[in-house]
Amino acid sequence: MRSHYCGDLRASHDGETVRLCGWVHRRRDHGGVIFLDVRDRTGLVQVVFDPDTEDAFALADKVRGEYVLQLEGRVRLRDEAVRNPRMATGDIEVLGKSVTILNEAQTPPFELDEYSAAGEEVRLKYRYLDLRRPEALKRFQFRSRLTHAVRAHLEGQGFMDVETPILTRATPEGARDYLVPSRTHAGSFFALPQSPQLFKQLLMVAGFDRYYQIAKCFRDEDLRADRQPEFTQIDLEASFVEEDDIMAITEAMVKSVFKDMLEVDLPEFPRMTYEEAMRRYGSDKPDLRVPLELIDVADLMDGVEFKVFAGPAKDPKGRVVAMNVPGGGDLSRKEIDEYTKFVGIYGAKGLAYIKVNDLAAGAEGLQSPILKFLTEEAIQGILARTGAANGDLIFFGADKARIVNEAIGALRVKVGHERGLAKGDWAPLWVVDFPMFEEEDGRYYALHHPFTMPKCDPEELKSNPEGALSRAYDMVLNGTELGGGSIRIHRPEMQRVVFEALGIGDQEAEEKFGFLLDGLKYGAPPHGGLAFGLDRMVMLMTGGDSIRDVIAFPKTQTAACLMTDAPSPVDNQQLREVGIQVRKDDK
Amino acid sequence: MRSHYCGDLRASHDGETVRLCGWVHRRRDHGGVIFLDVRDRTGLVQVVFDPDTEDAFALADKVRGEYVLQLEGRVRLRDEAVRNPRMATGDIEVLGKSVTILNEAQTPPFELDEYSAAGEEVRLKYRYLDLRRPEALKRFQFRSRLTHAVRAHLEGQGFMDVETPILTRATPEGARDYLVPSRTHAGSFFALPQSPQLFKQLLMVAGFDRYYQIAKCFRDEDLRADRQPEFTQIDLEASFVEEDDIMAITEAMVKSVFKDMLEVDLPEFPRMTYEEAMRRYGSDKPDLRVPLELIDVADLMDGVEFKVFAGPAKDPKGRVVAMNVPGGGDLSRKEIDEYTKFVGIYGAKGLAYIKVNDLAAGAEGLQSPILKFLTEEAIQGILARTGAANGDLIFFGADKARIVNEAIGALRVKVGHERGLAKGDWAPLWVVDFPMFEEEDGRYYALHHPFTMPKCDPEELKSNPEGALSRAYDMVLNGTELGGGSIRIHRPEMQRVVFEALGIGDQEAEEKFGFLLDGLKYGAPPHGGLAFGLDRMVMLMTGGDSIRDVIAFPKTQTAACLMTDAPSPVDNQQLREVGIQVRKDDK
Repeated sequence: MRSHYCGDLRASHDGETVRLCGWVHRRRDHGGVIFLDVRDRTGLVQVVFDPDTEDAFALADKVRGEYVLQLEGRVRLRDEAVRNPRMATGDIEVLGKSVTILNEAQTPPFELDEYSAAGEEVRLKYRYLDLRRPEALKRFQFRSRLTHAVRAHLEGQGFMDVETPILTRATPEGARDYLVPSRTHAGSFFALPQSPQLFKQLLMVAGFDRYYQIAKCFRDEDLRADRQPEFTQIDLEASFVEEDDIMAITEAMVKSVFKDMLEVDLPEFPRMTYEEAMRRYGSDKPDLRVPLELIDVADLMDGVEFKVFAGPAKDPKGRVVAMNVPGGGDLSRKEIDEYTKFVGIYGAKGLAYIKVNDLAAGAEGLQSPILKFLTEEAIQGILARTGAANGDLIFFGADKARIVNEAIGALRVKVGHERGLAKGDWAPLWVVDFPMFEEEDGRYYALHHPFTMPKCDPEELKSNPEGALSRAYDMVLNGTELGGGSIRIHRPEMQRVVFEALGIGDQEAEEKFGFLLDGLKYGAPPHGGLAFGLDRMVMLMTGGDSIRDVIAFPKTQTAACLMTDAPSPVDNQQLREVGIQVRKDDK
Repeated sequence: MRSHYCGDLRASHDGETVRLCGWVHRRRDHGGVIFLDVRDRTGLVQVVFDPDTEDAFALADKVRGEYVLQLEGRVRLRDEAVRNPRMATGDIEVLGKSVTILNEAQTPPFELDEYSAAGEEVRLKYRYLDLRRPEALKRFQFRSRLTHAVRAHLEGQGFMDVETPILTRATPEGARDYLVPSRTHAGSFFALPQSPQLFKQLLMVAGFDRYYQIAKCFRDEDLRADRQPEFTQIDLEASFVEEDDIMAITEAMVKSVFKDMLEVDLPEFPRMTYEEAMRRYGSDKPDLRVPLELIDVADLMDGVEFKVFAGPAKDPKGRVVAMNVPGGGDLSRKEIDEYTKFVGIYGAKGLAYIKVNDLAAGAEGLQSPILKFLTEEAIQGILARTGAANGDLIFFGADKARIVNEAIGALRVKVGHERGLAKGDWAPLWVVDFPMFEEEDGRYYALHHPFTMPKCDPEELKSNPEGALSRAYDMVLNGTELGGGSIRIHRPEMQRVVFEALGIGDQEAEEKFGFLLDGLKYGAPPHGGLAFGLDRMVMLMTGGDSIRDVIAFPKTQTAACLMTDAPSPVDNQQLREVGIQVRKDDK
C-alpha cells in the first residue's frame, strides 16, 4: 500500500514519485495551498496540495486531524528559505497528486501535542491515542530493541529461553497472589506466579543448566508506589555456579546493553556490603551519584541532656546520624521546613540541623536551635567527623534505626539532587552480604526469599539465625534496585532448616513446597540466578517518570484498566461454572 | 566450577586436565575399576576411577545414579578396541583424579532410560526428572532456538515486540475465559486473554505499524484433544497491508525458520479456497501429503433405490462421495471393519466400499455388498470419475455434508498414511476465502472471529450473510493448522454490521467492545495479522507426539499440574480478601 515511510524521505529522493500512508498530524491552509504534516511510525513529512490538482485538492480540503490517508506525490526540495532543520524530512516536501481517505477520525479527546495538559485519566482511557505521541512510540521501540539485545546477549552465553506456567500453584512468596478458580476442580484455585522462582530451580534440577525468560509476574499488592499488578522480569538461572559467576554474567549483560542502546560505557560495578550501604547511605539501594553520607554520632550524643538524641543514642535499636550538606548554609527557613515535612513521611519526628557559618568563631559561628542542648565535646566531635566547612549545613536524624535510615536516606537523595550535588549520569553497584532474615514482631522473615542459601552451615544458622548472612546480591543503579538474586539452597536438609527458622514446620513445608523438597532429593545441582525488573530498567534508560510510561496498557493505582474497563462484573452463569460466587456483603 | 562441559570433550583434549560437573548417568564396576558415565546438558563422558587414586576411588565407590558430582581428571584416548562410535565423546575417557559429591540423589521413581515404560502420570509428577532425558532437553533447546529465529526474522522485517496485558477484560471470543477476582474492585473480575487480538488491533490504531509478540493465551476449554489451558502464540499484526502482504511476510518467516532449523527448503505455498479444500479433502486443513481425494457422486446416486445414498443425495445439506484407494483391494475384511469403526467416531453410520478386481470383467469383476443396490449407470459413473484401476478399493460416504466431510476427511488421512500413500515430508498450503459465518441452530457464528473483514461491503453483508466470504487465511502444514489470520475491520460501521449479523446489538457491542469501537472512530488504519500456534509448530518440527512434549510444565487433560498439585484449595481468608466464596454445593 505504500512505497516509503514518511519519516524516511530525504533530499536524495528529490524527483521520486512516492506512495505514503499515515495520519494527518497537522493541517494548515496558506496562500490557497493546503499543507498536511503526515505522520507514520517513522516521523512526519509535509505534503502540499495546490488547487491545480483538482480532485486531490478537493479531498485534501476535507481531511481533518488524525484522518488516515494514502497519498501519492512527487518529492521535491523545499526552497532554502523554508527548509526546517528541526525536522528530519525538513529539506523536502511531497507535492500531492492524489489522496485516498482510508479512514475518518473524530476529534480526539485531547491534543496529541499538548498531552501534558490532559490528565492521566483521559490519556489512559484513550491509551491508543496517547501512544500516538512520538515520544511514547520511541519508548516502546527502545523496549523492543532492549529485550532483543538482552536475549542476544544471554543466548550468546548459552542461556535457553524456557516458558514457565502462568496458571500455577499458590505459593506464598510474601506478596498476595492473584487467584484463578478452576472449573474442572471446583473449589480449587490456580495462582498467577509472583515469579518463576520454583520452576526455574526445578529446571536446574532437570539439568537445563542455563535458563532465561522474559517473564510476566503478578503481585496483588497495594499500588502505593510506582507498581503494577503485572510486571516483567528478565529472569535467569544457572547451575554449577557461585556468586561471582552470576554477577559477572549479569554485569556484562547490563554493560553490553548500555553500550548497545545508549552508547554508555559503565564502569566496573563496585561491591558494597549491606552493612556498609545501610551505615553510609541508610539504604540497601544507595544512589551513589549523591556524595552525601550518614555519619554515626550516637557515641557523641549518649551523654547529652537532649532526650531526642540521648534516647536513640542509648537504644540498641536506635541510631543517631549527622549528614553534612556542602554549601547547605544558604538553605532558607522555608526550605528546611519542607525537608522536615519530607522526613516526616518516613516517620521522623523532626529534623535538627546546624548551620556552619564560621568555624573560626567557635560556637558563635554556628547557627542552630539545638546548639544549646549539645555539649562542647559533642559539637567538636560532630564537626570533626563530618568535616563540615564554612557555609555547610549539618542535618541530624535520631530515632529507631529503621526510621533514621529511611528518613535521612531519602533526604540524602532528595537534597543531593535538588542542590545539584549529584555527580555523573549512571552509578551502578552491587550490594552483597545481606542478612538472611529480618525480625518483626518476634518472627523472622526472609530478606530475599526462603530459597536463598545462607553463607553458613545449617548448624550455625540454627544457633544464630539473626546473625546469618545470605548468598544474595542486588544490582543497584542510581538508587533503584535493577535486579536481585542469590545462590539457592540445593540440599533438602538446609532447606528444612531455613523453613524452620521462618516458622514453616515440616508438614506445612511438605504441603506447600513438597515438590521443591522432592526435587532437591533427586540430585539438585548447586545453582543460582537473578531477576531484573525490565519495566524499571526501560524506564531508567529512557528517562520515563513512571513504569506506566513503558507498559503499553498499564493499570491505574487501583489496579484497573481505564481503556477496557477491566475488571468488570461477570454474569452468574460464568461464576457458577467455576464454582464460586461473589460474597453477599460485597455485592 | 568447571573447565569444560562433559559432552564437548574430544580426542583433541587428550592429555588435558579437566574439571567437570554433572550427574551420574550410569555406573559400572569392571575389573576392579569404576566407570561412571557423567551427564550434563551437552551429553555424556566416561570417567574411570582406578584403586590407585585412593580417595577418589573411595568416593566414586559411594556414588549412585543421579548423584551430582564435581570431578577432576585427565583426558586420555581410549584403546582402539573400546572406542564407542555411537557416543560423541566415545574416542576418549577421563581418568578421574578427584571427586566432590555436590549432592546425593535418591533412586528416581522411574528409570530415565526406560521412560516409555513409566506412565505419563508419574513422569508429570516428577517432571524435572522426565526432563533429564536427553531427547526432552533437545526439544526445549530446539524451541529456544526456534523462537530466537522467529524473533530475528520478524525484527528484521520491522516488527516491534510489545507486551500486552494478561490481566484483562472478559471479552467472549468463543471459548470460556479464565477469571481472576479483583481485590480492589470487589465483585469484579479480570479475565486472562484468549489472545491479544483487541490489544494488537489497538496498537495498530496507535500507529505502532508492525507489532509482534510471543504471547501466552488462555482458554478454559475441555481438553479432549491435544490442548492445554495455556498455550503460546507467535502473534503479529501490521498496518496498511492486504492479505498478500501478511501471507508473504509469514510464509517467508516459516520458510526461513525451516531452513535455519531443519535445513528444509519448503516450496512456495499453494493457495486453495475453503470451498475447494472441503470439496476435495473434506477438511479446511487438508494434509496434502496424502493424494487421496473425495469425489462427489450425489448426482449419480439420487436415482438409486438404496436410501443410504439416495437420501443424502437429494438433501441440500447432504453429501455423497467416493474415495478411491489405489491398491486398496488387498484390504482385509477385518481392516475394513476397523475403518468402519473409525468413521463411526465422526458419526458415520457405515462405510460402503467397492473392490475393483477386474475392470474388464464388468460387474463380475467388482466385489461389494452394495453393488446390488446401484444402477449400472451409477457404477460406471463412479468408476469413471474415480479413475479406479484393478486392485483399487473405493470407499463411500453418504450423510449430512458435515459428517461426510469429517468422517471421510479423517479416513482419507488415516488410510493414506497407513497404506504408505503419503508423499514428501512437508506439505504446506494456504487456505483462503473462508465463509464469514457458520450457521448453527438458526444463529450465525463467526468462522474466524468477529473482527475479521468481509470481502464484501456492509450492504451486501446485510443482505446475504450466509454467502459472504471473509478476508481470512489459514496456514496449514501436514494437516495441522499452523496459524490463522485475517485483514481486520477498521471502520466502525462495518464492525457494527458484523456484530448485528452475529446477534450482538448496539448496546451489547458498546458494553463489551466499546473501547474497540471507540478506537475505530479515531482514525484506525487498515490492518491485518496472523497468529501461529508455537507449541504445535515446535511439536511438528521436532516430531513430538503431543504438545505436552514441548511445554516444560504442562497440565493434564483435567487441567491440573501433577507436579505442583495445582489447582489447590485456598484458605477462606484469601477468598474473603478478593470478595468471593466457594459455592456451597461445590465444597
